[in-house]
Amino acid sequence: MKKDTAILMIHCPDQKGIVSTVTDFLLTNDGNIIDLDQHVDHSEQYFYMRVEWELDGFGIPQDKIAEFFETLIAKKYNMQWSIEFCHCVPRVAIFVSKYGHCLYDILARWESKEWDVEIPFIISNHDKFRKVAERHGIPFYHIPIIKDNKQEQEAKEIALLQEHNIDLILLARYMQIISENMVSKYKNKIINIHHSSLPAFAGADPYGNAFKRGVKFMGATAHYVTSDLDEGPIICQDVVPISHRDSIKDLKRKGKDIEKIVFAQAIWSHINHNVMTYNNKTVVFE
Amino acid sequence: MKKDTAILMIHCPDQKGIVSTVTDFLLTNDGNIIDLDQHVDHSEQYFYMRVEWELDGFGIPQDKIAEFFETLIAKKYNMQWSIEFCHCVPRVAIFVSKYGHCLYDILARWESKEWDVEIPFIISNHDKFRKVAERHGIPFYHIPIIKDNKQEQEAKEIALLQEHNIDLILLARYMQIISENMVSKYKNKIINIHHSSLPAFAGADPYGNAFKRGVKFMGATAHYVTSDLDEGPIICQDVVPISHRDSIKDLKRKGKDIEKIVFAQAIWSHINHNVMTYNNKTVVFE
Amino acid sequence: MKKDTAILMIHCPDQKGIVSTVTDFLLTNDGNIIDLDQHVDHSEQYFYMRVEWELDGFGIPQDKIAEFFETLIAKKYNMQWSIEFCHCVPRVAIFVSKYGHCLYDILARWESKEWDVEIPFIISNHDKFRKVAERHGIPFYHIPIIKDNKQEQEAKEIALLQEHNIDLILLARYMQIISENMVSKYKNKIINIHHSSLPAFAGADPYGNAFKRGVKFMGATAHYVTSDLDEGPIICQDVVPISHRDSIKDLKRKGKDIEKIVFAQAIWSHINHNVMTYNNKTVVFE
Amino acid sequence: MKKDTAILMIHCPDQKGIVSTVTDFLLTNDGNIIDLDQHVDHSEQYFYMRVEWELDGFGIPQDKIAEFFETLIAKKYNMQWSIEFCHCVPRVAIFVSKYGHCLYDILARWESKEWDVEIPFIISNHDKFRKVAERHGIPFYHIPIIKDNKQEQEAKEIALLQEHNIDLILLARYMQIISENMVSKYKNKIINIHHSSLPAFAGADPYGNAFKRGVKFMGATAHYVTSDLDEGPIICQDVVPISHRDSIKDLKRKGKDIEKIVFAQAIWSHINHNVMTYNNKTVVFE
Repeated sequence: MKKDTAILMIHCPDQKGIVSTVTDFLLTNDGNIIDLDQHVDHSEQYFYMRVEWELDGFGIPQDKIAEFFETLIAKKYNMQWSIEFCHCVPRVAIFVSKYGHCLYDILARWESKEWDVEIPFIISNHDKFRKVAERHGIPFYHIPIIKDNKQEQEAKEIALLQEHNIDLILLARYMQIISENMVSKYKNKIINIHHSSLPAFAGADPYGNAFKRGVKFMGATAHYVTSDLDEGPIICQDVVPISHRDSIKDLKRKGKDIEKIVFAQAIWSHINHNVMTYNNKTVVFE
Repeated sequence: MKKDTAILMIHCPDQKGIVSTVTDFLLTNDGNIIDLDQHVDHSEQYFYMRVEWELDGFGIPQDKIAEFFETLIAKKYNMQWSIEFCHCVPRVAIFVSKYGHCLYDILARWESKEWDVEIPFIISNHDKFRKVAERHGIPFYHIPIIKDNKQEQEAKEIALLQEHNIDLILLARYMQIISENMVSKYKNKIINIHHSSLPAFAGADPYGNAFKRGVKFMGATAHYVTSDLDEGPIICQDVVPISHRDSIKDLKRKGKDIEKIVFAQAIWSHINHNVMTYNNKTVVFE
Repeated sequence: MKKDTAILMIHCPDQKGIVSTVTDFLLTNDGNIIDLDQHVDHSEQYFYMRVEWELDGFGIPQDKIAEFFETLIAKKYNMQWSIEFCHCVPRVAIFVSKYGHCLYDILARWESKEWDVEIPFIISNHDKFRKVAERHGIPFYHIPIIKDNKQEQEAKEIALLQEHNIDLILLARYMQIISENMVSKYKNKIINIHHSSLPAFAGADPYGNAFKRGVKFMGATAHYVTSDLDEGPIICQDVVPISHRDSIKDLKRKGKDIEKIVFAQAIWSHINHNVMTYNNKTVVFE
Repeated sequence: MKKDTAILMIHCPDQKGIVSTVTDFLLTNDGNIIDLDQHVDHSEQYFYMRVEWELDGFGIPQDKIAEFFETLIAKKYNMQWSIEFCHCVPRVAIFVSKYGHCLYDILARWESKEWDVEIPFIISNHDKFRKVAERHGIPFYHIPIIKDNKQEQEAKEIALLQEHNIDLILLARYMQIISENMVSKYKNKIINIHHSSLPAFAGADPYGNAFKRGVKFMGATAHYVTSDLDEGPIICQDVVPISHRDSIKDLKRKGKDIEKIVFAQAIWSHINHNVMTYNNKTVVFE
């Protein structure tokens, strides 16, 4: 049985005594730590910490932890922090266009309970995957986007996201640029999979450009979406060797495989509250 | 400038409050933690911790830290622990036979000061690398071993190791089995590089056996030497893809490259006091 | 548009003039070669060749090529050979037990037409994936196997395989040993995915044994099934780094990802007629 | 014993019958083919071939092969081609600046006869590695370069290269841009190692930029030098995973290891006549 736990994620300028203070706070209140990871970026003198402890027996009621932590500790150290509870099931919206490999992979992980998430709906600018969604009992919204209707269509999307209390948006090869409006509403809550090893081959047609340049490795990158296209904090990357024998078709086939795996790894890290961002980079605890 | 630091490595059965207690101990005595990593093996309920702090300003004199830590903390938690000081330069002996790729690589890292170690001597059961040793100003001992003289020759080796206060023995493709006598004197202080991805192809002729089996990856494994051949705690491994195109000669050539890199990574982890062993496994902090 | 092609796969003792003779044969009959690969295993003096050419304009009718090739060339060189036509769609049967990650992955590739195969049915010793099969319109046969009924249940399976002219059997984490009877009927036509990097951790519980041994990489192996368990010719392997941080649960999660990818790569090579076997090894052209 | 062989490397627009014609030419003249590899880039309709055969018993004298091949075959197919003989030992010049890891690695491979090359001299714009060169008995030329003397210093270098009949120039972390004059004299004969996975982080300070961007993999690229900085045909690449735990210092340390390995692989491919270039890309046979 998975135990009920709380996860505290903290970052702040590095100072003496943070680990000691936080662990003391938990110990004093009978919190049994089951995982602790910390990291200091010495080039920035910046401190990151993730600590997970059992709620069972913890002296502070769950709905009061945030208040107590802020008052007793966070303020003093000028911390940016968040708290998560492992029994809260994230609500995930999937955006997809015409390539289904990431969508299929996500649905398989969801259906087989590899991931403990809810998927309230799927949005697409094409109608192609309606049947795939429907046979899983997931509502499918076909929201086509052209130059002239982008703003109003995105408004519909945002309405859906808000109505369904979406925690995480997955751009599963969604071939539309997300507007700054939506990005700002879901900071560090939109994960995109890009089909290259960023910063190489950002933008359109990474396969074609990789083929043309004659690289010997191609990659995939999962990152949080920011208002700068393909420039957000990188969560996960991987590469696969290629050779002169590989045609663009081969690159696409091989690319799809790493894309879905890299995307899944990033999503796993996110939904397990292992990712912190700072300075447009990520700290990904394991 | 690298700062003078102490590194404490602890392992013990998992209990509430260890991290808090240890960090409190350091904080109370004005120790500035610059790195902390811990790990709990939940399957064994076993706790591992590595903490590094600045000696400058620390309230307990360096030569008293061990006594204080044992008395105030370690006893209570039934800890196994060790303390290291980063300004102590490890004294490393190299054992080699007829393949020089690891030897050359180690000497290059030493000469270019990538590693801060001393190499008081090189031992070999062949005379092949005498010149290589001598041009670096390192004493070279040719100690040939045959069935009948193994015990007395190893006695000579042990005498040399002890006389020179050797901290770490590197079996850089040394093709002799180390006797239990020497192993027991240097527990977790002898690192071997085996030319396969253990436990696959333990023992003799891993390249030939990999070729015969038709595997699509071959590997290298750096491990601490125990009295069971190729069965000691694994510190580092890596693999390289191979195909039907690779002859045994190709396997050897490709193998050499990962062997020297894997060996160097393991040595790096060891000399930076990042490796703990328990239950014939390693925890390797980064 | 994909062109109609024929693929000739040849192996025989190495002799002078094979490539020249075969390419002459094709050229003389107006065959346009679009791909040629050959390999000589110099340790065995053994020759392998794969050549693909366009059928359009080829001077020998498709149903006569085999006879002509055998008569004019193969006999003389003592070749073992086979011919395949790219427009023949392989008929694939899937065997699965309780883990669905490979099954889901295969179905996704099939549905999205990444693979041009037919899947006449799925067999399982459990009833778990009936719905998954049925929603894809694929017949599902629940054939539970216990010690006492193995022979008769396998007879049912063989009957199904024969009735449906199955070309390829995929053991997609099928947790039953295939009897010698079935193996001999489908030589080099049954692909299994084993959840370790063979020959390491053959047999049961590879994850548990990998965890216990403390390895730093774990793997997956796709191989043809022979009567020796986990000893058949290896088609494809891959590995993923692991560390002390990974619990057995983590190994399972990471293992699943490489298993499905490695399995898919092996299947891709097989259905594109890129794999030849000899001496319990494979030659996998790309 | 390695046999005396000739290696023919051909590229031309794809046409019917090339393989057949070339292998016939060899067979007719009693040439025993020991290796043949060919590749068609279908996107460009372009053909590449490498064939190696034994000179012993071959009907055409070695010094006449080129003439015969050009007259009888190459002209007809509009081939670009070259012929090499495996008993010719390449003469290699090393250029280095202040980082020695690639230099040390090359010297070790040369001294241990892993590579069959001659190293007539080492050139550096610093005096740092004079002793390293001299203890190997290799002449060392210190040719410092500043803005004002670049042209005349490079003239000295070119004089040395020509005087010593250099076949291959290795830029072993040589921190000077090679002028177009020298590049044009040594087309596809200058190999550079760049410390990133090109095209990512071309130009200066790839480690720093990789750190800043927060990538999860870093790489190394060996490529032929052209007049466009870091834009030449890529011969070999590799990557290594990194994480938030890695400082710039760690990136440098890890980078050095892949740089020397990737560089060595590229050099190995080149000196074994496995590399062809076309359209600023390489075909690297194995």
